[in-house]
Amino acid sequence: MKEKPLVTIVMGSDSDFSVMEETGKTLDEFGVTYEYKVTSAHRSPDQAVTFAKGLFDRGIKVVIAGASYSAHLPGVLASHTTLPVIGVPLDASPLKGMEALFSMGQMPPGVPVATVTIGKAGAKNAALFAVEILATNDERLQKLLKDHRAQIAASVEEKDKNVRNS
Amino acid sequence: MKEKPLVTIVMGSDSDFSVMEETGKTLDEFGVTYEYKVTSAHRSPDQAVTFAKGLFDRGIKVVIAGASYSAHLPGVLASHTTLPVIGVPLDASPLKGMEALFSMGQMPPGVPVATVTIGKAGAKNAALFAVEILATNDERLQKLLKDHRAQIAASVEEKDKNVRNS
Amino acid sequence: MKEKPLVTIVMGSDSDFSVMEETGKTLDEFGVTYEYKVTSAHRSPDQAVTFAKGLFDRGIKVVIAGASYSAHLPGVLASHTTLPVIGVPLDASPLKGMEALFSMGQMPPGVPVATVTIGKAGAKNAALFAVEILATNDERLQKLLKDHRAQIAASVEEKDKNVRNS
Amino acid sequence: MKEKPLVTIVMGSDSDFSVMEETGKTLDEFGVTYEYKVTSAHRSPDQAVTFAKGLFDRGIKVVIAGASYSAHLPGVLASHTTLPVIGVPLDASPLKGMEALFSMGQMPPGVPVATVTIGKAGAKNAALFAVEILATNDERLQKLLKDHRAQIAASVEEKDKNVRNS
Amino acid sequence: MKEKPLVTIVMGSDSDFSVMEETGKTLDEFGVTYEYKVTSAHRSPDQAVTFAKGLFDRGIKVVIAGASYSAHLPGVLASHTTLPVIGVPLDASPLKGMEALFSMGQMPPGVPVATVTIGKAGAKNAALFAVEILATNDERLQKLLKDHRAQIAASVEEKDKNVRNS
Amino acid sequence: MKEKPLVTIVMGSDSDFSVMEETGKTLDEFGVTYEYKVTSAHRSPDQAVTFAKGLFDRGIKVVIAGASYSAHLPGVLASHTTLPVIGVPLDASPLKGMEALFSMGQMPPGVPVATVTIGKAGAKNAALFAVEILATNDERLQKLLKDHRAQIAASVEEKDKNVRNS
Amino acid sequence: MKEKPLVTIVMGSDSDFSVMEETGKTLDEFGVTYEYKVTSAHRSPDQAVTFAKGLFDRGIKVVIAGASYSAHLPGVLASHTTLPVIGVPLDASPLKGMEALFSMGQMPPGVPVATVTIGKAGAKNAALFAVEILATNDERLQKLLKDHRAQIAASVEEKDKNVRNS
Amino acid sequence: MKEKPLVTIVMGSDSDFSVMEETGKTLDEFGVTYEYKVTSAHRSPDQAVTFAKGLFDRGIKVVIAGASYSAHLPGVLASHTTLPVIGVPLDASPLKGMEALFSMGQMPPGVPVATVTIGKAGAKNAALFAVEILATNDERLQKLLKDHRAQIAASVEEKDKNVRNS
Repeated sequence: MKEKPLVTIVMGSDSDFSVMEETGKTLDEFGVTYEYKVTSAHRSPDQAVTFAKGLFDRGIKVVIAGASYSAHLPGVLASHTTLPVIGVPLDASPLKGMEALFSMGQMPPGVPVATVTIGKAGAKNAALFAVEILATNDERLQKLLKDHRAQIAASVEEKDKNVRNS
Repeated sequence: MKEKPLVTIVMGSDSDFSVMEETGKTLDEFGVTYEYKVTSAHRSPDQAVTFAKGLFDRGIKVVIAGASYSAHLPGVLASHTTLPVIGVPLDASPLKGMEALFSMGQMPPGVPVATVTIGKAGAKNAALFAVEILATNDERLQKLLKDHRAQIAASVEEKDKNVRNS
Repeated sequence: MKEKPLVTIVMGSDSDFSVMEETGKTLDEFGVTYEYKVTSAHRSPDQAVTFAKGLFDRGIKVVIAGASYSAHLPGVLASHTTLPVIGVPLDASPLKGMEALFSMGQMPPGVPVATVTIGKAGAKNAALFAVEILATNDERLQKLLKDHRAQIAASVEEKDKNVRNS
Repeated sequence: MKEKPLVTIVMGSDSDFSVMEETGKTLDEFGVTYEYKVTSAHRSPDQAVTFAKGLFDRGIKVVIAGASYSAHLPGVLASHTTLPVIGVPLDASPLKGMEALFSMGQMPPGVPVATVTIGKAGAKNAALFAVEILATNDERLQKLLKDHRAQIAASVEEKDKNVRNS
Repeated sequence: MKEKPLVTIVMGSDSDFSVMEETGKTLDEFGVTYEYKVTSAHRSPDQAVTFAKGLFDRGIKVVIAGASYSAHLPGVLASHTTLPVIGVPLDASPLKGMEALFSMGQMPPGVPVATVTIGKAGAKNAALFAVEILATNDERLQKLLKDHRAQIAASVEEKDKNVRNS
Repeated sequence: MKEKPLVTIVMGSDSDFSVMEETGKTLDEFGVTYEYKVTSAHRSPDQAVTFAKGLFDRGIKVVIAGASYSAHLPGVLASHTTLPVIGVPLDASPLKGMEALFSMGQMPPGVPVATVTIGKAGAKNAALFAVEILATNDERLQKLLKDHRAQIAASVEEKDKNVRNS
Repeated sequence: MKEKPLVTIVMGSDSDFSVMEETGKTLDEFGVTYEYKVTSAHRSPDQAVTFAKGLFDRGIKVVIAGASYSAHLPGVLASHTTLPVIGVPLDASPLKGMEALFSMGQMPPGVPVATVTIGKAGAKNAALFAVEILATNDERLQKLLKDHRAQIAASVEEKDKNVRNS
Repeated sequence: MKEKPLVTIVMGSDSDFSVMEETGKTLDEFGVTYEYKVTSAHRSPDQAVTFAKGLFDRGIKVVIAGASYSAHLPGVLASHTTLPVIGVPLDASPLKGMEALFSMGQMPPGVPVATVTIGKAGAKNAALFAVEILATNDERLQKLLKDHRAQIAASVEEKDKNVRNS
């Protein structure tokens, strides 16, 4: 979390933080600045609208929003900003995030939300996708992404050795 | 559709009208005044917010909102009004409204939406539920509801005769 | 739980009480009187019918019914009363309440049930929806609802501060 | 349809007749007497209860009930009779009977409903299951069932020849 | 478990016994004789076929089969006997019995299986349904069923008192 | 269809032929001999068992079985043969083959069925998978498979040109 | 389709073109250059890999990939490029794209795909999301996006008038 | 695990080993040689491609690949080899492997993957299916398969005795 964030990581409740901090930790690996924000599409709708409308002028480039149950948060933010909004469905409900996946993933035509995986896997992928967006115009990030890919490939090879030797 | 509507029937697009007019027709049977409104949680979010905030002062008592796909409309309206909001999931998507049912039906705690059946069956039931709400304080409507129940019971008996004689 | 209840909170078994008492607690916040009732659509059908038929004359205004598995309870009550019936799908089954959501949420046209979220989230929202119904004709409740909305918005801001300072 | 029916074939609406007559036609093959009945768990609940309570004394042995959407009809009948009730989920809804399958198939413990296949396949199997019930105490039916099995096996062999020669 | 069983309770593995013994215990309440049988549609298919073919001559009246995963057991038994077969979907798989419900519940036309609820609730209901079948020709059982209904209704009233006094 | 078939293409009814002939046509492309067989797990169970038991001695190497609804056919065949059995879920039911996918795809441990795609896509892939099995020991087939891959890759390039020029 | 494309619109078959051209048409509205490409993750895997690896050096900024059934195409492309990949699940299968939504939407952690709505709605939203990505660094596009939002809001108001006057 | 493996057991991460070793253990019972391999369709795509392309020349006969979430691994391997590929959906995600089943099970036509059961049951069945493939050309294995079937049938009889004596 730095002075001038490029990415905002939004969630509807502080109880989502333990999952969404995976997003922050991953952005840290790329030196991408970010902020955390708790706001609710339903419980604090005016704040959410004001927050969404102010994002562009504050220099935010990418919005990541985690939500569970009906998971309207990314859609509501997306309707009030033209920044790219990435939705992370959270599995805090009895249906294990399936309804959040449907609710984010099936936005009607006109205002897009890009949905990633349910839960912590999605929180990580949302960060990586945000970096990919920023990297379309940032050679340093582009290089870091390539390094990251090399690194995860190497890590797979490492695991392969472990299993073969087990 | 009368001068002073008690119920507002909201939909995200005029293409939903052919289903949602079932709501209006059913309210007509009870002499309950209503209006139709097209506004979109995502495509016209400011109008939707303004519309929702003004509902109470215009004397609206019940909100009925039909939506398909992620179906955020009833939830967004509900977050800006304390009037009861009834959601009608519409089956205009490849998943036949299943995602709309999940998206309306699984609102997180704090701001309720009451969901009825997918499609035309729900458009009718939303109207009946609105009448039941209004009837909690209106003896005339209470009586009409009881008549309506007697009438649909009689209609079942009529159908029974037809089938038995077939 | 007061002398003259306005809301009845019905459940099929006392094992549902730990979830459904969320409804009562929420009504307490608004000073809305209520009662708890255990009756079963299948195991005590005659009592359920008698109970439903007597609701109106006892001055009940809103019915809230929690049920799991096939979850017929709200539908059965709704068929014997013209009061608004709110269904809470409970996740006491291996399918985690998904079948209860379908079973309440997909009522055929003619007799409505308004369905809220699966589990404790729904038990709370059912209470809030009942208050919204009562508030259509009660200025005190209308004001309390607005206060409640301000309060949950403030609570979101509080959580926002916690996360930002974490 | 004979003077003294052993099986009652119940449906919520005459629009279900085109599917449920498959049940009657199949019973005809076994010379089992039956009646058709239209009654609705929700739209004519008192009739449904009265009907269910009178079944035993009228000499009915097996109840078959087809229903779509939330499909409470077999469960409601089962709660008012100790006769075996077979439920046929009908695919008249946008979700194609999936919710009816869940709604009938997931009855809570205490009052059973035996569910068969969605749609016309189920309407036929309900009849066959009713015959199997009656045949537990009727040698003539037991023999007819065995003949029927031989016959459908022969019909499969016939189809096999057709395909092999095609 | 008595000398001359009327009901056979079949399961694919002894690991299903802890659920399926609910069936036996319920039959005990009605004094209905039964046996337990482990046989597998896939792992011991010849035994299963032989077992199914011998049921009628051994005087068995009703077959109850619990199975998880693809849950072919009741269907395979049904294809080799004309006795009524009741299927109990078991939730021993990652999908919690949903696939077993589909696999038993969606038998193609010609050979019926009657499916009850997933898990222990279904194990109980299968027993009750078997008793209902036997009671179509046994006045003593018919009376016991009516007593049982009165008893579960009384038990609901008892629970109602507990909740009201809580 | 040749004198000495290596693959048997089994289906429960001749109505499945229009889909399953895709399997035969694909095998024709590889010069793999096959036969069509109609037999039913439920309607002709003894034939199905006899058929399955005789497969090995007739020189059959691979079994392909298409089925809809509960789709027990491949599982039943697999339980009576040690030849590899490939299941093709067919979408002839209101649930569009989803239950067949679950019913074949979720075989319990001990007797495997390998499931391919629902419908015609699966009928084709079953044939290709059968060829892959046979090719593990047949250089001619191995070469043909490689040619086939080159050919479908070329066909994709052709389509690419069409779209680019459109 | 212009000389120097910024966006590539990939699909597995030319039969997907009628849906995916919605993406191209939407990009046309923003004057964003693009190309169409047919390549298949499974049928032309080497071409797909080569294509993905060459994207960055050709100056492509955003990848949009439509796919049906298991829908691996966007994931396979994403594994060979660090450009942002947007997946459009197509409803060309009996399950109506539900499996494609799961298959794209549930990428494991490490390599992200951003999923949009099933079908034509998604094809449009993918284009809008691509424009949002490009607009993070292009003031002209940012302005056009704001105009587009104003325009769709105005279009909603227009529809509102039509419905109110109907 | 022997010098010259006939089967390769592939997984995307060493965290899948505890499930996939069921495959190895089962192959051990048949004396079929195998190797374990960790490679990822997304995180080490080039290795995965190289690995797949080299399989045939190394003398591998059958590929078994376990994967969770979008589960592209078996499909990606299948696209680069003409060896039979068996997919094992793993339940390491919030949706319990349901999306992996859809993602493997619904391969588009042209390149087949044969899918087995979710989780450990599937890991075992994949091994058995691989043995069945190898046994189409190996009399020793064919005999062992028959012994295995006899053995699991005997084991069912053993369990039957236990339950009957319990």
